[in-house]
Amino acid sequence: MNNIITKLFDIKHPIVQAGMVWNSGWKLASAASNSGILGLIGAGSMYPNILREHIQKCAAATNKPFGVNVPLLYPNIEEIMQIIVDEGVKIVFTSAGNPNVWAHWLKEHGITVIHVVSSVKFAQKAELAGVDAVVAEGFEAGGHNGREETTTLALIPMVCKAVSIPVIAAGGIATGRGMLAAMILGAQGVQIGSRFVASTESSAHQAFKNAVVAAQDGATQLTLKELTPARLLKNKFYDDLIELYQTKPTTEELKALLGRGRAKKGMFEGDLEEGELEIGQIAGFIDEVLPVSTIVENIVNEFNIASRELSNLTLE
Amino acid sequence: MNNIITKLFDIKHPIVQAGMVWNSGWKLASAASNSGILGLIGAGSMYPNILREHIQKCAAATNKPFGVNVPLLYPNIEEIMQIIVDEGVKIVFTSAGNPNVWAHWLKEHGITVIHVVSSVKFAQKAELAGVDAVVAEGFEAGGHNGREETTTLALIPMVCKAVSIPVIAAGGIATGRGMLAAMILGAQGVQIGSRFVASTESSAHQAFKNAVVAAQDGATQLTLKELTPARLLKNKFYDDLIELYQTKPTTEELKALLGRGRAKKGMFEGDLEEGELEIGQIAGFIDEVLPVSTIVENIVNEFNIASRELSNLTLE
Repeated sequence: MNNIITKLFDIKHPIVQAGMVWNSGWKLASAASNSGILGLIGAGSMYPNILREHIQKCAAATNKPFGVNVPLLYPNIEEIMQIIVDEGVKIVFTSAGNPNVWAHWLKEHGITVIHVVSSVKFAQKAELAGVDAVVAEGFEAGGHNGREETTTLALIPMVCKAVSIPVIAAGGIATGRGMLAAMILGAQGVQIGSRFVASTESSAHQAFKNAVVAAQDGATQLTLKELTPARLLKNKFYDDLIELYQTKPTTEELKALLGRGRAKKGMFEGDLEEGELEIGQIAGFIDEVLPVSTIVENIVNEFNIASRELSNLTLE
Repeated sequence: MNNIITKLFDIKHPIVQAGMVWNSGWKLASAASNSGILGLIGAGSMYPNILREHIQKCAAATNKPFGVNVPLLYPNIEEIMQIIVDEGVKIVFTSAGNPNVWAHWLKEHGITVIHVVSSVKFAQKAELAGVDAVVAEGFEAGGHNGREETTTLALIPMVCKAVSIPVIAAGGIATGRGMLAAMILGAQGVQIGSRFVASTESSAHQAFKNAVVAAQDGATQLTLKELTPARLLKNKFYDDLIELYQTKPTTEELKALLGRGRAKKGMFEGDLEEGELEIGQIAGFIDEVLPVSTIVENIVNEFNIASRELSNLTLE
């Protein structure tokens, strides 16, 4: 397939491996890029010097294009962006913030800029800010999420109607069938997160990967709407959060419970009780940890089988 | 298309017009059935004698199959079910309750029984109860909704994997593209609600139809989770509800605000301030009130265009 997304990133398949905190280091990103999709390093969980190291190792491990995801709500953004430019990264995905501040500067440095949005309004703002494409991410996605709670199935057609730049669908997609469904709705590519958490090359702790595989329908919940909404795997920390919610907590009390390092503790160190475990609803459909190359192969095969089926689907 | 759903209901297209309170009377159901899809009368908003009248008028207005949707949480279920049998209705969709109690009795009376579910667990229970198919309805759907908040894109593949009976997808579907996406995910048919609220033949008040057309992304919210979760169009009543939620209300206080007749007041009488307005997220994509026959024609055309377009898509 040769389309506007494969051309934009110079990749084989219009698939992006999401840049996820504590999951997407150079091993995952380079494995993704080497499999013909776009690999992204997740800068959100990295100190600037760690990010530099991951970019350098990723560049050494693949000669294919890769990018960096930068959540704009994290600190040290100036330093992070300077490192990205200095290290010659050509593709940046910004998320969780206003793209206006950075899109122009990054593009002046010759960088392709994509912004992650959760609503029509934010997609239009991103287009006005001059980004090259948007990732439109539905309510079912893991991690940080939109307040409108619009699902991928509803969001994609609305965003595609509202903007002229390419739309990459995210949230609830882990298979070739999910990818084809998103493209039927008008997306020109997909971003896949949860499926790559449960990959051999993800830097997630093995215990977290196992928890993703074990997760069933109903295992996650969008919460922390007063701070930044996040979809979490239900565990003891989540139960503590729900108990605190019963007392009608202030934002400060929520922040105090959340504390520091919860996401690292859960996803990177494997503390399934006290850690914050960010994952999408589609975890309920993922039942095996696989190498990235196998995941991509499976998606390609499923996509082709499903698209062949379409030629027989006609309403008369 | 000739598939397990068209055969089950003896209809032309595997599409069900959802039975919705205050929207789906005999006019909507017969127009749907006359357009080659399955029309459903929504019994949830009808006293038993009113339901009898609608069934008789529907039977007079179409010689095609139609059915009745019965939310099991409403009162008078015994009387309602007896009328359905007496009037010779051949298809019943049950929702919002446990199908165990009624599936067997209805099937003994020669009736095809479908149950609406929002999770894998409930789909498996419905299959065990002996229903002929399930409607798997995602978080984006209007009206009553599941506590797991699983979206259509995530729910359909999980339910299809978990049960052997046919799966009809619902929630977020208003176009031929949405229908095709649902079928690629494994559904054998779709149930469409919001799109038919904004139809000429719906019994919704014109003011509510206009509000659905005006709705944008983010216009709805799932609320009332302590009673029965429902997705509502945001209006003054919704704001009052949110204000009450700030006071950490008891279930009784919520019930008191909800009161009686809120749904009728909003959807049927057109009081957009004080009424309860149930609608799905995809309302944001609906921009015109159309006759049912045109809606079905558009869905068929979009479906065929999309399936032709995408059958050429191959990942290499």
